[in-house]
Amino acid sequence: MKFVRYGELGHEKPGVLDASGALRDLSDVIEDIAGDILAALPDVDVNALPEVPGAPRLGPPVGRVGKLIGIGLNYYDHAAEVGLEPPKEPIIFMKATSSITGPNDPVYLPRGSVKSDWEVELGVVIGKRAKYVSEADALAHVAGYTIVNDVSERAFQTERGGQWTKGKSCDSFGPIGPWLVTPDELGDVQALDMVLDLNGEPAQRGSTSSMIFGVAEVVSYLSQMMTLHPGDIIATGTPPGVGMGMKPPRFLREGDVMTLAIAGLGAQRQEVRQDA
Amino acid sequence: MKFVRYGELGHEKPGVLDASGALRDLSDVIEDIAGDILAALPDVDVNALPEVPGAPRLGPPVGRVGKLIGIGLNYYDHAAEVGLEPPKEPIIFMKATSSITGPNDPVYLPRGSVKSDWEVELGVVIGKRAKYVSEADALAHVAGYTIVNDVSERAFQTERGGQWTKGKSCDSFGPIGPWLVTPDELGDVQALDMVLDLNGEPAQRGSTSSMIFGVAEVVSYLSQMMTLHPGDIIATGTPPGVGMGMKPPRFLREGDVMTLAIAGLGAQRQEVRQDA
Repeated sequence: MKFVRYGELGHEKPGVLDASGALRDLSDVIEDIAGDILAALPDVDVNALPEVPGAPRLGPPVGRVGKLIGIGLNYYDHAAEVGLEPPKEPIIFMKATSSITGPNDPVYLPRGSVKSDWEVELGVVIGKRAKYVSEADALAHVAGYTIVNDVSERAFQTERGGQWTKGKSCDSFGPIGPWLVTPDELGDVQALDMVLDLNGEPAQRGSTSSMIFGVAEVVSYLSQMMTLHPGDIIATGTPPGVGMGMKPPRFLREGDVMTLAIAGLGAQRQEVRQDA
Repeated sequence: MKFVRYGELGHEKPGVLDASGALRDLSDVIEDIAGDILAALPDVDVNALPEVPGAPRLGPPVGRVGKLIGIGLNYYDHAAEVGLEPPKEPIIFMKATSSITGPNDPVYLPRGSVKSDWEVELGVVIGKRAKYVSEADALAHVAGYTIVNDVSERAFQTERGGQWTKGKSCDSFGPIGPWLVTPDELGDVQALDMVLDLNGEPAQRGSTSSMIFGVAEVVSYLSQMMTLHPGDIIATGTPPGVGMGMKPPRFLREGDVMTLAIAGLGAQRQEVRQDA
């Protein structure tokens, strides 16, 4: 199943795609795609649901996200690209949940930004509470998968003193969606092609097969340190092709357009604007 | 005014202290001390409210915390204690909001923890949305102040690869409270004595007068990078006396008791337990 949340910012309704890709309304079945509902997403007859007319805005496919956790340097080929050794343990950072936007909403460059960059990533949505779970049990705690653009201001992240949070948490730096795809529908999560184009030109190309720490290992690892709750999202790292790895580096400018896709998870498109 | 949230975990009710320090119930006035209510906390006749019998558990004095932001190395005397230069800009990190507990709830050492440590800190509670605010305007966005114990597993924080989040986000590592004290009641926020005792022996002694970046500067700085929303909490750094600064270092063990106080903001008490 492919779940979505559609409608105006802050007032999104739950929906689901039918076999033809048309949007159906789930409002009469569930209140939202959030919290404990993620542990038991409805298995409904999609064709019996009302079709939603038009092409409404899509929001992030999960509401009330408690934690947005990032994994750093988690692709062999991206670590090589930026000249760093693959880490021995997963690198964890946090993006502020206030950075979350819909998959096709604009990305705003904050005042003073000169090094904003893109990162297509596989997003893991937690469905069931996870604490001290083994790698073997970890995937049973996952509600599904989505795309995250882990937009990052590199100067804020690395040149302003300590900790990456500064460059990861700006408003609009967390486009998520378009869909929450259930694991049964997606198939092998460690064999998904990933792409990000800038203004129609190839930037990132990769595959989740190149992850250093796979989804099960990441979920298990995190759960040794903190409880993962339904609705938490993990952005699992990015493949090669980010702007800071280009020669010369290329960063986002007003008017740029990012398009992202991961096999089976749909596509995102963001226009870049300067924050007023 | 001194606001509190009391009752069982996850079911806290809003309350307020009267002039004698007795707890009065605010449930008929506001739904919770959270979100937009923080922008206009009720100015009620406290003595007309029903008194709450007994001594119920206190929860964190703010509900639905969106972000729990920490400021690192923000006291001149603490930076000296750990042998580091004072930072040129505020160091920002995030604690998972799932770490938040009440001021007197137990602190649980996660499995494998050998270097868990304490940090008494002034907590700043955002009341009104703040984006690109000046230092002069910053305090108008603050709903009030509280105490945060920024419990930190030092091995997770610094010896496991990248980013402090790992050691800051463990369940129960964010005791907050007991009170949310409004700015008018507190007086000068940059002149508050702070203490933390371990098993009744002095550990931390300090004053908010020794902050490198004061509250107004921190709020303004953060708001250049991300929107601060009502209910966000900033833990503004810790004075000297943490366990890792002792010679030899002294870390938390099962059975230890931490007691914390900041002038005008009340006191916390946590027993340390080993997580099962």
